[in-house]
Amino acid sequence: MGILIKDAMAILPEGDRDEAGRHSIYIEGKDIVGIDSEPEGFKADKVIDGRDRLVIPGLVNTHTHTYMSVFRNVADDLSFMDWLFKTIDPLEARLTPEDAYWGSCLGQIELIKSGTTTFNDQQMHIHQTTRAVKDSGMRAVICRGLVGDKYDREDYRLKEALEEMEDGKDCDRLHFMLGPHAPYTCGPEYLKMCADVAKEKGVGIHIHLSESEAEIENMRKDHDCTPIEYALKAGVFDVRTVAAHCVQVTDGDIDILKKHGVSVVTNPASNMKLGNGFAPIPKLMDAGVNICLGTDGAASNNTQNMLREMNLLGLIHKGNHRNPECVSAREIFRMATINGAKALGLENEIGSLETGKRADLVILRLDVPSMMPCNNLIASLVYSANGSEPDTVIINGKIVMENREITTLNEAEAYEKIRKIMEKLGLDRKKY
Amino acid sequence: MGILIKDAMAILPEGDRDEAGRHSIYIEGKDIVGIDSEPEGFKADKVIDGRDRLVIPGLVNTHTHTYMSVFRNVADDLSFMDWLFKTIDPLEARLTPEDAYWGSCLGQIELIKSGTTTFNDQQMHIHQTTRAVKDSGMRAVICRGLVGDKYDREDYRLKEALEEMEDGKDCDRLHFMLGPHAPYTCGPEYLKMCADVAKEKGVGIHIHLSESEAEIENMRKDHDCTPIEYALKAGVFDVRTVAAHCVQVTDGDIDILKKHGVSVVTNPASNMKLGNGFAPIPKLMDAGVNICLGTDGAASNNTQNMLREMNLLGLIHKGNHRNPECVSAREIFRMATINGAKALGLENEIGSLETGKRADLVILRLDVPSMMPCNNLIASLVYSANGSEPDTVIINGKIVMENREITTLNEAEAYEKIRKIMEKLGLDRKKY
Repeated sequence: MGILIKDAMAILPEGDRDEAGRHSIYIEGKDIVGIDSEPEGFKADKVIDGRDRLVIPGLVNTHTHTYMSVFRNVADDLSFMDWLFKTIDPLEARLTPEDAYWGSCLGQIELIKSGTTTFNDQQMHIHQTTRAVKDSGMRAVICRGLVGDKYDREDYRLKEALEEMEDGKDCDRLHFMLGPHAPYTCGPEYLKMCADVAKEKGVGIHIHLSESEAEIENMRKDHDCTPIEYALKAGVFDVRTVAAHCVQVTDGDIDILKKHGVSVVTNPASNMKLGNGFAPIPKLMDAGVNICLGTDGAASNNTQNMLREMNLLGLIHKGNHRNPECVSAREIFRMATINGAKALGLENEIGSLETGKRADLVILRLDVPSMMPCNNLIASLVYSANGSEPDTVIINGKIVMENREITTLNEAEAYEKIRKIMEKLGLDRKKY
Repeated sequence: MGILIKDAMAILPEGDRDEAGRHSIYIEGKDIVGIDSEPEGFKADKVIDGRDRLVIPGLVNTHTHTYMSVFRNVADDLSFMDWLFKTIDPLEARLTPEDAYWGSCLGQIELIKSGTTTFNDQQMHIHQTTRAVKDSGMRAVICRGLVGDKYDREDYRLKEALEEMEDGKDCDRLHFMLGPHAPYTCGPEYLKMCADVAKEKGVGIHIHLSESEAEIENMRKDHDCTPIEYALKAGVFDVRTVAAHCVQVTDGDIDILKKHGVSVVTNPASNMKLGNGFAPIPKLMDAGVNICLGTDGAASNNTQNMLREMNLLGLIHKGNHRNPECVSAREIFRMATINGAKALGLENEIGSLETGKRADLVILRLDVPSMMPCNNLIASLVYSANGSEPDTVIINGKIVMENREITTLNEAEAYEKIRKIMEKLGLDRKKY
């Protein structure tokens, strides 16, 4: 099917900068086949009027747990330990695979509606997030969360991870990584095994690193090193690694991250909400580390809204460093798009509007109060948009949302299922 | 006209707490005339189905400059001095009164759409914000910004302020304060005069206090005191005062604010964006100061979205103090509603859903991904809502938005006017 987006404002890469200008975008099959020049033989089955519209590459949410959306707002204003051990863990244990499927659907509905087309997910119930991705039309990188102590190739979680990879081969929107959860839940030998298997399979690693002060203290006490040094010793960084959080890092850690090409996913809302603080983003930027952006799961955020996350990223470091020039809108736009694509090894497919890349893009309304007046559109996205501006979302050349209606999933059905899960868990409209 | 909101979730005060429960709300004329019990002789001309809806008191934005919405996103990622003197000030000088009217309309459209019913505004073009308030149906407290040195009752700005108060007497949604801009723009005698006139007129004072480090340093150098001590000496706190910002305050300042019943408006986005830092909200809360919330103008925020501001307030202090229990959703809900009403002297009219108060309320959708699942609805508002959930807004008993359509102002006309102003200023879709 050929889609023409006609005379819209669009943000395109021009050398090292991204610039907003008026463009027409030609889509055929799964790809962007032309920008401003119509390819020979192109036939537009659908023309989208670009007046009062802004086209951006689909946002890349580089660290989340979509199925946790079912636990949005059940545990707030609590200490990390009360949050995790008294509320989230016991609830999670009661979740069935079917519940996890609907939780992931809810997360993906929110992702699409707020302009994300690709997400990087660590989860527990294999086949469920992948099943939801197949249904939603999104692009995703999935890993089954792994925890363990020994070098054990027969570990059941690892087997599930490998089984899931096999299961996803029939969908070109699905990619995989291995997901050793964190240094504090994975022994050195187990971590080494994960690195070996990732190497053999040619996939990357998605891991939580240096999130909380407690993690750093315990690692120092038990292993006399930082979590990042621990991961380095286990060989994790021999494969492409996406490291979530990196809030508490030393200068030595930053050198390691840079040297080994580790991508850092910053999750501002989650890090603040759980009281972990602010990641040293300006320092990581100065060091030249590839920084990308994630929402984390909705249990600790409490949304999947990347435009809100971009806004947080644009404000908190200016406040924390008392420097209004620190972490600009332009830099954030890259973190939320092409940098995320690079982290996932998908920079040749997605992350920018370019001929030959997949047609993963978001069309936002400009005739809404948050986007008026239209002048610096990259600033509008970061500082003014609230996440309700996306009107149409195209992934892999397919329209998955049009006029804010999801075309792939049944929203009302998903909400009804979520209500039922809440009733079962005794969480429906309770007072906390 | 009688309006019945039937069987909706609603957040009502129950003693010292706010609780969400299922309620029916009866509105007659300008007032809430009953909750859960139908008043005798009540006739519903309109029934609003409360299924999948949440009713909250209209949010109170306690510090803004609505007409500045016309300058949204024209000056970002700049130092405070470049922002103010090189960009905002020269542009502001070119704004006509008519431009200011449309700027305020744009700001008010965004306020209504994101759930605010009352705002406290400091502005320059008299009759324009009041004119826009008369048209929009909003409730507002207005002050003309005042700057000067001498004790001069003939000061033209003061005369404009008093003229504007007269002009607003025909609208019961309009209230007034005096607005001496700040200690760094008002000499001690001028400030004393403002306090005297406010006392005579029986109105409060709306002032910027202790916003930036530079302000503190200069005040220390020139007057050997803090801005708050300076305002105290001038007699400002002898009248009800709303103090915006208070980012850089000493323990002595906090004692003064508490002792004199000064309400502090915190503006998290603006304070971060301009590199001023984080106000000491937990300390001010401990001291028992009345804290309320504002967006500041869109030139330094860059939105009028109070739900986003509530979210920022809920996250940044947890991050800054590394304490997930710091500044809870319940506390923020009060800051954005009843505390704002108290600051403005309107606590008997607005700020909570109670029989006998004016019908200023917002009906939000719950069947949207950001609000699913529905459990802790106060947490949902603070941590998950993005500002697009308000569906219907009622102010002074009148529906000003229904199904997200503003009924009082013509949105398309406002945007067209804003486009024309941008063209005139040479700001239309320029690259910065």
